[in-house]
Amino acid sequence: MAQFNMEDHPHKRLNVLTGEWVLVSPHRAKRPWQGQVEKVSEEKRPEYDPKCYLCPGNERIGGHMNPSYTEPYVFVNDFSALLSDTPEGGVDEGLFQARSESGICKVICFSPRHDLTVPEMEVSEIKKVVDLWAQEYKSIGENDFVNYVQIFENKGSVMGCSNPHPHGQIWSNSTIPNEPAKKQVKMKEYFQKNGKSLLGDYLAAELEKKERILFENEHFVGLVPYWAVWPFEAMIVSKRHVSNLTELTEEEKEAFASAYKELTVMYDNLFEVSFPYSAGIHQAPTDGEDHPEWHLHMSFYPPLLRSATVKKFMVGYEMLGTPQRDITAETSAKRLRDLSKVHYKHR
Amino acid sequence: MAQFNMEDHPHKRLNVLTGEWVLVSPHRAKRPWQGQVEKVSEEKRPEYDPKCYLCPGNERIGGHMNPSYTEPYVFVNDFSALLSDTPEGGVDEGLFQARSESGICKVICFSPRHDLTVPEMEVSEIKKVVDLWAQEYKSIGENDFVNYVQIFENKGSVMGCSNPHPHGQIWSNSTIPNEPAKKQVKMKEYFQKNGKSLLGDYLAAELEKKERILFENEHFVGLVPYWAVWPFEAMIVSKRHVSNLTELTEEEKEAFASAYKELTVMYDNLFEVSFPYSAGIHQAPTDGEDHPEWHLHMSFYPPLLRSATVKKFMVGYEMLGTPQRDITAETSAKRLRDLSKVHYKHR
Ligand SMILES: O=P(O)(O)O[C@H]1O[C@H](CO)[C@@H](O)[C@H](O)[C@H]1O
Ligand SMILES: O=P(O)(O)O[C@H]1O[C@H](CO)[C@@H](O)[C@H](O)[C@H]1O
Repeated sequence: MAQFNMEDHPHKRLNVLTGEWVLVSPHRAKRPWQGQVEKVSEEKRPEYDPKCYLCPGNERIGGHMNPSYTEPYVFVNDFSALLSDTPEGGVDEGLFQARSESGICKVICFSPRHDLTVPEMEVSEIKKVVDLWAQEYKSIGENDFVNYVQIFENKGSVMGCSNPHPHGQIWSNSTIPNEPAKKQVKMKEYFQKNGKSLLGDYLAAELEKKERILFENEHFVGLVPYWAVWPFEAMIVSKRHVSNLTELTEEEKEAFASAYKELTVMYDNLFEVSFPYSAGIHQAPTDGEDHPEWHLHMSFYPPLLRSATVKKFMVGYEMLGTPQRDITAETSAKRLRDLSKVHYKHR
Repeated sequence: MAQFNMEDHPHKRLNVLTGEWVLVSPHRAKRPWQGQVEKVSEEKRPEYDPKCYLCPGNERIGGHMNPSYTEPYVFVNDFSALLSDTPEGGVDEGLFQARSESGICKVICFSPRHDLTVPEMEVSEIKKVVDLWAQEYKSIGENDFVNYVQIFENKGSVMGCSNPHPHGQIWSNSTIPNEPAKKQVKMKEYFQKNGKSLLGDYLAAELEKKERILFENEHFVGLVPYWAVWPFEAMIVSKRHVSNLTELTEEEKEAFASAYKELTVMYDNLFEVSFPYSAGIHQAPTDGEDHPEWHLHMSFYPPLLRSATVKKFMVGYEMLGTPQRDITAETSAKRLRDLSKVHYKHR
């Protein structure tokens, strides 16, 4: 029998941040695809769309008016999934367990320009988004009933995004959501045992191996994690061990903005299409406790697999068993790394 | 402040089988939808399609020929994600953890008829699928290197299914996949503490409350679980505490087939469309150990939300935080329960 190697043989890899596994089937990358293909909606958008409910000066669905904003603009979601005035209570009846959950949901328009996306914005403009994220993390988190602030972006209609105007969201909760809760357990265990950041040590090891690194600037690194689930999943990690956005210096925030742009330019260049993804920042809870174990990072989960129209489906086996991927994290990293650094629209 | 109630107020509910939470935002059910709509592909299919690689007598992509089968037909997946001859090995290097993984992947054609789906098949025909599942669970599980057998069905192109010919899959592993592993922990804890089946006790409580029950026959119950994530998620649970398919009597297998049909007829009737879903059976591992804690059940994860073309997106917040739903499990159960029991095509 041949010797086991990860380029050829099916295997599973452990996500050390969550404790969950991913199944990798590298031999299967050449499987033909006869299933659903996505629509590519690459119409050229105007700088201002009178019918867009996120453009400056327009009326939103709820009847509110947007100001004529010129910088990133934040407002309370007109259809918030979480509300600040939810009465306390719940159900505590054996196998029936429910808890009231409060929070605040906001929308952030990244730019007044309807036709831009993050990879097409200037770093100085993206830096203002990072600034606003930090402010919102702080001010939302200061509410007594908010203990976790989840910043995220859904990009592209295939990711359930209903408006192409560049924007993200912030949902905040009284309790820590499932995913950061899992990560907190692992980071805490590691910190208590080693007195160091789990993600910091992981980053150091990746910087030595180099094979999954996408890019690096003075303060941030972009990489495909060893345990990536989505075909081109990536992570932006701060080099310094900071637990949340408010700890970043101005220079670090600028470097974060630059990394955000660099990764999304790679993404757009991969299939020469505006690359869909969901992305979000995991950082320390705002529960008033000290969280030396937390290490700020942003995760990107893009669905595309082979082309602008063929995505990876996380369905049957993935939902009922374990997430599965065909190409390895190393192959994905190499493909992204080898692309031109110039956005395809500007070549 | 009003009193908390689950029909109006945002809350989270605990999935006692996995230990994970779902966020429920019932007040948000009236949110307008402006995002992506799915294509409905309701062309009438022929009974036999000469170009279908699953139809009897046809050639498959890999070059193999299907026999002229007349009953459910099973074969090894031509693009198996798991293989039986994977060399052992792995990586055990601090934060880099990987393990070789072996297994067998199969495809089951449910019927020779290209134009049918489970809700349109006779119960006696579906019973033959259940029989074959039980046989395959047993024979695949008898391999030394197989310790878990995952039976599942992806239905509909929106669920990554590349061929409308009625079929399902079986993927088997050396190690227990993430989802059944989580359930095993919870069922074991409960069994060790109470000497009874967690799911059995849950089922008894649901049968008393009635509000989430969809239907019941002598041996199986269909219900929307308290912690349902997908808008019309459902579960088929055996009344008797059996740990796997091979323990079912002939009569019970027939009742399971009938429940499978009853639920999928409800689904098709909901939006009068062939209802997409991923579904699968969770049962005891085939690791040679006794699993008195395990209780056989089949889970259905359908993506549609409001209509045949608007699905629920499990994206940003869901991927990075916690799965979220708008309508409550109780409302979904009532809507499904109130539908005609006759398939819309046969009315
Ligand atoms: O094996 P199929 O039907 O080609 O593939 C489908 O089901 C698999 C198992 O859920 C998934 O991994 C694939 O993403 C999906 O397209
Ligand atoms: O709030 P939006 O953009 O309307 O909605 C989108 O993002 C939400 C948060 O990830 C999801 O719950 C929705 O399913 C998705 O369509």
